[in-house]
Amino acid sequence: MNRSVLVLCCEGFEEIEALSVVDVLRRANVSVTLCSVPGNDIMNGSHGIGVRADKPFGEKEKAGIGYDAVVLPGGLPNAHLLRDNDGVIECVKRFFSDGKLVCAICAAPCVLERAGLLSGRKATSYPGSIKMESCGSYVEDRVVRDANIITSRGPGTALAFSYEILRALGLGNAADKLEEGMLFGK
Amino acid sequence: MNRSVLVLCCEGFEEIEALSVVDVLRRANVSVTLCSVPGNDIMNGSHGIGVRADKPFGEKEKAGIGYDAVVLPGGLPNAHLLRDNDGVIECVKRFFSDGKLVCAICAAPCVLERAGLLSGRKATSYPGSIKMESCGSYVEDRVVRDANIITSRGPGTALAFSYEILRALGLGNAADKLEEGMLFGK
Repeated sequence: MNRSVLVLCCEGFEEIEALSVVDVLRRANVSVTLCSVPGNDIMNGSHGIGVRADKPFGEKEKAGIGYDAVVLPGGLPNAHLLRDNDGVIECVKRFFSDGKLVCAICAAPCVLERAGLLSGRKATSYPGSIKMESCGSYVEDRVVRDANIITSRGPGTALAFSYEILRALGLGNAADKLEEGMLFGK
Repeated sequence: MNRSVLVLCCEGFEEIEALSVVDVLRRANVSVTLCSVPGNDIMNGSHGIGVRADKPFGEKEKAGIGYDAVVLPGGLPNAHLLRDNDGVIECVKRFFSDGKLVCAICAAPCVLERAGLLSGRKATSYPGSIKMESCGSYVEDRVVRDANIITSRGPGTALAFSYEILRALGLGNAADKLEEGMLFGK
């Protein structure tokens, strides 16, 4: 069964975090849509890299129709723009309540915090970017999975985050092979 | 003193390898030029990510004027297109003979192999992408620095490669701080 994943970006997304996910998931034949929330064709990352969006954030994306997971990269102002966008909050709540995977790295767990999805859950983030008391248990593991929420810490944990997303999508064999083939941890 | 680094890409560059270098070096205030060898405005990576080029590969780039280092990402066909381009071969030879830094990761050490720069040197690459006998000593370390040549192995070693480039540019303090701040190895 083909998996389909939505990656949401605003201006100032962290390039390593966003693109490691796209790269790793596409290597496992997951259909990945790199989606511009403001709708621009070329999105500027936090280090000045311009990246082409696959499509704008439309009603289908907001409702999660046809997608198995949503991924939020970090980077500023990206993470705060995502957090302050009511459509994005509606989107992550919808994915969560539909039992789909909701994933955020670095500063982007602040989006899940505003959506109230971390309450009572184990989670992580870039140090200082969410209030520890907004989670059930704040930890400093590279990647944390609690039910259908995956959180991670920063650019240095972006590959580990990507492999964990594959595993949560039921693609553990592909994750194992990619860790080996991409020389992860070597 | 401001450092200036040239990153050369053709179609099918490996996104994590190319963009980790750009991201890390710009965090250390290095001026990084993401250069399209074929001259297109949007370059397509090996996993379908479209990235905006800063400028085309011109005479200034070929001669290394104003640049302290050249970096070659992997990915296919990118690495083979770079290898088969006489202007790129001329460029890496010129950087090398001027005592500037020449850096290649994954399949891209094949460019240095064709340019004859690995002879008698310690080097690495993605497994199988260069002939071991073209180097003085082929090793499997994540990153190898021999004089002004830095080689590395693949997407999983791209961050380590980027920090080593900073150190070779005399920016070791910045590299240490970024390893910490980007949660490298955490």
